[in-house]
Amino acid sequence: MSKNCIVAQSGGPTAAINASLAGVVAAARDFGIYDKIYGAIHGIQGVLKKHFLDLSDKDDAFIQKLARTPAMYLGSCRFKLPDMKDDVSMYEEIFSIFEEMNIGAFFYIGGNDSMDTVAKLSAYAASIGNDIRIIGVPKTIDNDLIMTDHTPGFGSAAKYIASSIREIAYDTYIYDLESVNIIEIMGRDAGWLTAASVLARNEFSLAPHLIYLPEVAFDKEQFITDLKEMVKKYKNVIVAVSEGIRDKDGNYISATNAAADKFGHAQLSGAGKTLEYLVKEKLGIKVRSVEVNVLQRCAGHMASMTDLTESFLSGKHAVVLAKNGESAQMVSLHRLSNAPYTYELSNTPVSEVANQAKEVPVSWITPDHHDVTAEMIAYLKPLVAGEVPTDYADGIADYLDVSHLTKVYGK
Amino acid sequence: MSKNCIVAQSGGPTAAINASLAGVVAAARDFGIYDKIYGAIHGIQGVLKKHFLDLSDKDDAFIQKLARTPAMYLGSCRFKLPDMKDDVSMYEEIFSIFEEMNIGAFFYIGGNDSMDTVAKLSAYAASIGNDIRIIGVPKTIDNDLIMTDHTPGFGSAAKYIASSIREIAYDTYIYDLESVNIIEIMGRDAGWLTAASVLARNEFSLAPHLIYLPEVAFDKEQFITDLKEMVKKYKNVIVAVSEGIRDKDGNYISATNAAADKFGHAQLSGAGKTLEYLVKEKLGIKVRSVEVNVLQRCAGHMASMTDLTESFLSGKHAVVLAKNGESAQMVSLHRLSNAPYTYELSNTPVSEVANQAKEVPVSWITPDHHDVTAEMIAYLKPLVAGEVPTDYADGIADYLDVSHLTKVYGK
Repeated sequence: MSKNCIVAQSGGPTAAINASLAGVVAAARDFGIYDKIYGAIHGIQGVLKKHFLDLSDKDDAFIQKLARTPAMYLGSCRFKLPDMKDDVSMYEEIFSIFEEMNIGAFFYIGGNDSMDTVAKLSAYAASIGNDIRIIGVPKTIDNDLIMTDHTPGFGSAAKYIASSIREIAYDTYIYDLESVNIIEIMGRDAGWLTAASVLARNEFSLAPHLIYLPEVAFDKEQFITDLKEMVKKYKNVIVAVSEGIRDKDGNYISATNAAADKFGHAQLSGAGKTLEYLVKEKLGIKVRSVEVNVLQRCAGHMASMTDLTESFLSGKHAVVLAKNGESAQMVSLHRLSNAPYTYELSNTPVSEVANQAKEVPVSWITPDHHDVTAEMIAYLKPLVAGEVPTDYADGIADYLDVSHLTKVYGK
Repeated sequence: MSKNCIVAQSGGPTAAINASLAGVVAAARDFGIYDKIYGAIHGIQGVLKKHFLDLSDKDDAFIQKLARTPAMYLGSCRFKLPDMKDDVSMYEEIFSIFEEMNIGAFFYIGGNDSMDTVAKLSAYAASIGNDIRIIGVPKTIDNDLIMTDHTPGFGSAAKYIASSIREIAYDTYIYDLESVNIIEIMGRDAGWLTAASVLARNEFSLAPHLIYLPEVAFDKEQFITDLKEMVKKYKNVIVAVSEGIRDKDGNYISATNAAADKFGHAQLSGAGKTLEYLVKEKLGIKVRSVEVNVLQRCAGHMASMTDLTESFLSGKHAVVLAKNGESAQMVSLHRLSNAPYTYELSNTPVSEVANQAKEVPVSWITPDHHDVTAEMIAYLKPLVAGEVPTDYADGIADYLDVSHLTKVYGK
């Protein structure tokens, strides 16, 4: 009797991570190398709790809708395994469950921390001579994993950011008065997603007029100088700013606000709100800050077809790797050319990836530190290409039933 | 030689107001009753400045793309005409420009203040026996105009709110821990748009679990009680709240935050942020507030086909009214049935509409004050139905060239 496999998801959600899950499930099913395909609920914690969904008999209709559903069908966790040398018991527990369930392969879809889990489980497996295949599938809207050209999930978030900023720009163009709109975009340490705002530009809309990434120091005085010039020239100015921008001493550009109401609670206001105060102070014109917030990572209706396809194929490739006897690997994407856009799926030892972050190369940021270069645009363009048809029910974007994540309470 | 006409837009943008403009331009062109169709840039102020675009020879391709382009192609203004008795000179100026340009009809697309302008211009025309036709076309995402079943622009905003809240709900369902997400929605005095969040619900996602409108008093203690119950029952709770909620004494639910950084600026933090502080204080669980901000009014990629069709037909109907010799009228929509959804276009004296607001009937709010009734759902459903194909260029939502609103600066 052949073995079974487990797939799980971890870290923050994206519009594409379920496409990777769909790829794993479809390939595991079609290759017929596993008896059962188990989905662990809430990542590695779901394995420890033996909380599984049986995905063995899912049909193509399910797989297709799964691929288009945002967030995480299996739920997530933010959980770092202890170092083996400090505490081996949890590893023993996980592998006894693998043993008991006759698991031949474990597929983990996630970002940096998830690849750390893959690396640690792989190291433990090697240390006990266990031949279970352990493969990581990358995902993050931050695009900050090394050893891969880009990460599944990034392209869809990039498409959402660029399209939304173009729409916000149209909103600002209507009044005959000067205005500044500051758009705060996710990315604490890497500016890839903020850089993607450049794709909002076309021949008649130059927004965002200023783009600030965390990879270079942010200078408030220089910002005000640049902004005044842009307002003079373009009247309505859009500023795209990463939540993670810092000054030359490495301090985040943020302000602590003490709420004055009776529930007063010290609040850290983000870069966008902080710059809004600053612009009000220094320019005294109409200014607004918009925190795009979670929609940039879960707007399934704005997914990039390129991204969803790559995510699906990455999941599928993980199963190919396991089938070929590989382990301790992360699926990676290698770009062959920009135009036409071509790439190949490959793999890289996960130990080389875990706990490292890929920043935007400073050479892709303009010398004035408030824009990105043509190389960045050429890199970004293919990743947002192609639209995914959204399913609607009664006019509202419709996705797969996820009541297994919620029904334990009421319902 | 026959007369010319002027069309203009005013007030806040919506994803559908350009569809009304497209309807006016298409009908004025096809009926052949006007020599020239002029678009005034920046509303009535554009008339005073004689700042016009000639829209006489636009083809169907332009009209179709115009109808799908969000915000306002002609630009907007927020300008209230003085009372005739206080200052008649501005009226004399406007009508001398009408005279000089041989204008037979003036079409004004906008909300409450715009209908006030239509009413005042109509009254002046009557007072001097001028037979120019002055017709208002309603538009507002707030849906707060009286004498019409609903307003063009509302359905698209409602669709965006409901779809976005469903996607945010998926984002919150992934972690195995209790959380509260508070979504702040536009609507200072009328709760229609916040009520539309109810359409996010389906058989497996009950978000938003709590809905608070400005039409009934908001009680913080009761809110915490209701919220605790919902968290206990559903773990991840989504709260939809109108920016305009007030306590029983009529005070807005908001907090003044003094920024502590050196650019310190007193900021009024909205209902969402204020309730976020409150929930942190009282429940101490993971809480986030999301201010949907301007995207809810300018997300052209999420427009309702029903809304865009009605907006287009409303613009067209305005020309029909002028053709039939009507004046001092606002186009209105009268619903004949909910299912199947049927309606007819009609008109109402604009003097009866101006400066009044239509609130949500309290009978459509549940007695517990944290949800809406089946009548509200039946009212809302048809308005979000149908999708509008979005044009994409290089993967980014693409719209009509509006450089006439920006090019005066640089470019």
